[in-house]
Amino acid sequence: MRSVDEIVNGVLEGDTRALARAITMVENEREGYEQVLERIYPHTGKAYVVGLTGAPGVGKSTLVDRLAKFARGHGHSVGILAVDPTSPFSGGAILGDRVRMQSHSGDPGVFIRSLATRGQLGGLSRASGGVIQLMDAAGRDLILVETVGSGQSEVEIMRYAHTVVVVVIAGLGDEIQMIKAGILEIGDVFCVNKADREGSDRTAADLRMLADSCSKGWIPPVVKTQARSGEGVDQLYQAIFGHRQYLESTGDMRHRQLRSAEAGIRDIIIEQVVDRTLDLARAEQVLDELLERLTARQTNPYQAAKHLLNAYGSQILRMCEGDAE
Amino acid sequence: MRSVDEIVNGVLEGDTRALARAITMVENEREGYEQVLERIYPHTGKAYVVGLTGAPGVGKSTLVDRLAKFARGHGHSVGILAVDPTSPFSGGAILGDRVRMQSHSGDPGVFIRSLATRGQLGGLSRASGGVIQLMDAAGRDLILVETVGSGQSEVEIMRYAHTVVVVVIAGLGDEIQMIKAGILEIGDVFCVNKADREGSDRTAADLRMLADSCSKGWIPPVVKTQARSGEGVDQLYQAIFGHRQYLESTGDMRHRQLRSAEAGIRDIIIEQVVDRTLDLARAEQVLDELLERLTARQTNPYQAAKHLLNAYGSQILRMCEGDAE
Repeated sequence: MRSVDEIVNGVLEGDTRALARAITMVENEREGYEQVLERIYPHTGKAYVVGLTGAPGVGKSTLVDRLAKFARGHGHSVGILAVDPTSPFSGGAILGDRVRMQSHSGDPGVFIRSLATRGQLGGLSRASGGVIQLMDAAGRDLILVETVGSGQSEVEIMRYAHTVVVVVIAGLGDEIQMIKAGILEIGDVFCVNKADREGSDRTAADLRMLADSCSKGWIPPVVKTQARSGEGVDQLYQAIFGHRQYLESTGDMRHRQLRSAEAGIRDIIIEQVVDRTLDLARAEQVLDELLERLTARQTNPYQAAKHLLNAYGSQILRMCEGDAE
Repeated sequence: MRSVDEIVNGVLEGDTRALARAITMVENEREGYEQVLERIYPHTGKAYVVGLTGAPGVGKSTLVDRLAKFARGHGHSVGILAVDPTSPFSGGAILGDRVRMQSHSGDPGVFIRSLATRGQLGGLSRASGGVIQLMDAAGRDLILVETVGSGQSEVEIMRYAHTVVVVVIAGLGDEIQMIKAGILEIGDVFCVNKADREGSDRTAADLRMLADSCSKGWIPPVVKTQARSGEGVDQLYQAIFGHRQYLESTGDMRHRQLRSAEAGIRDIIIEQVVDRTLDLARAEQVLDELLERLTARQTNPYQAAKHLLNAYGSQILRMCEGDAE
């Protein structure tokens, strides 16, 4: 068991083994992880964070690998975070990392890590924020965060990205569905991958029209790619860095930084107050009893919440003060 | 402006106008909404809640409408909640309701309502829980909750469902992606819609194999449907009620009720502690200043969170006590 000092120093020196250890600490909320995150925080804020999101099967992983290779060609070091709400059955995260590492054939300039859910609500978003900070502090210039587009925590994770790339493929149905899904709102760049599929031009044109008519300020570019062959990946890379220049030349970068900072604080307050309260109540069987009464309609959720806050609130606040010392 | 009394009484009598007003109160967190939810809570717990989720374009809305018609044919009253992270541009929710209402041609036995995001994290999940309770208290036997499968809050919303139907279509790519997306974990029933698409049999067979090999206890059935023509909707209905019987004959129903109750309490504590703390700090410009210091790396998120809890924690706890009276 390495000390917090050793791990922090290792991460700050860019040592990949220390980085991997630190990430495991954060992922498992192992003792000392908060200290590690506190100590590396002053050294963060240098990396550029790009989020890629989209439905399963649109080819995000291949695209991320291609972008990483492209960035390496430009001399940047890369961190890849694949956020993977994997079922406990498949246990795919670690295996996936190994397979993907091979595609960068031992290039130490590409650091890949997956994070999988362990059931806890909000835990994945919180851990993702921590991992991004660790990669940032370890000196990675570009951090690519890939989320499987099936739900869980995605939008929350995207709060940590400077540029969000929404990846789609043609043939997923009526384009109006994409508006309904709110993707126009979170996407800074749209990527129509597998562009050899029938209908890709149409999908790209529809997206362009929607982007033009709806945007205020930045108009999200629409790029067609074929990640397998690498076609269009350079344009995608340009589009991402075009967005970066836009953010930097307007006040928007500052706005995103503040938004991401607020998200980070909120995640921590939830962890330290809400989840600690529930954990304490669970440990003392108070929660079980309360849930029984609630399902029997002998109380209501508001009264139950108040009950827990009255019972544990002061204790939780004292714990937070204690932590501050 | 109706009084809380009038609205509560109206909802409990099953009056649809009162139900619609109450939902609007909850959606907009209008004064008195918590009282309404507290007062109707003892009358909840009777409805069966079915969640339908899946990627945009798989045909969830049509499927939900068909299931509603089917349930009506069996004499059940139905509530439909379409959770729609609609972009503010499209403003689609209300318009969508009107179009869909017509498909039930004024049948008062089908009550339809959409909820759209208003940006606030967690707000959609919280509001959805409230709307489900209102429909339940208003005497709806079956509540169908449809979420657009693009991310935001879905999995959280599905915690409120007794049976979760995952809707897919063939041709979205490698089936392994579905495992990666974690859908095996949340699905109680799988529905391959648009079953006339090429590859539907294969997709259904793959899902069946995965469901068989991974499940513990309940084996999620796989049903092929064509929602447009109505083909297979009766089998889907049977599969859902097969799952209900399973839940009721084992201890699993109780487990889901407890899980849903805990989710409800957690949402309320987040609202009353975390969001209130941030709101207070925002109102006093303390949050802005803290975020500035944070982005300048003069503090770290843990210290910032502690600072806010030390500054506002006691006040927040007193507010909660006050509420309890």
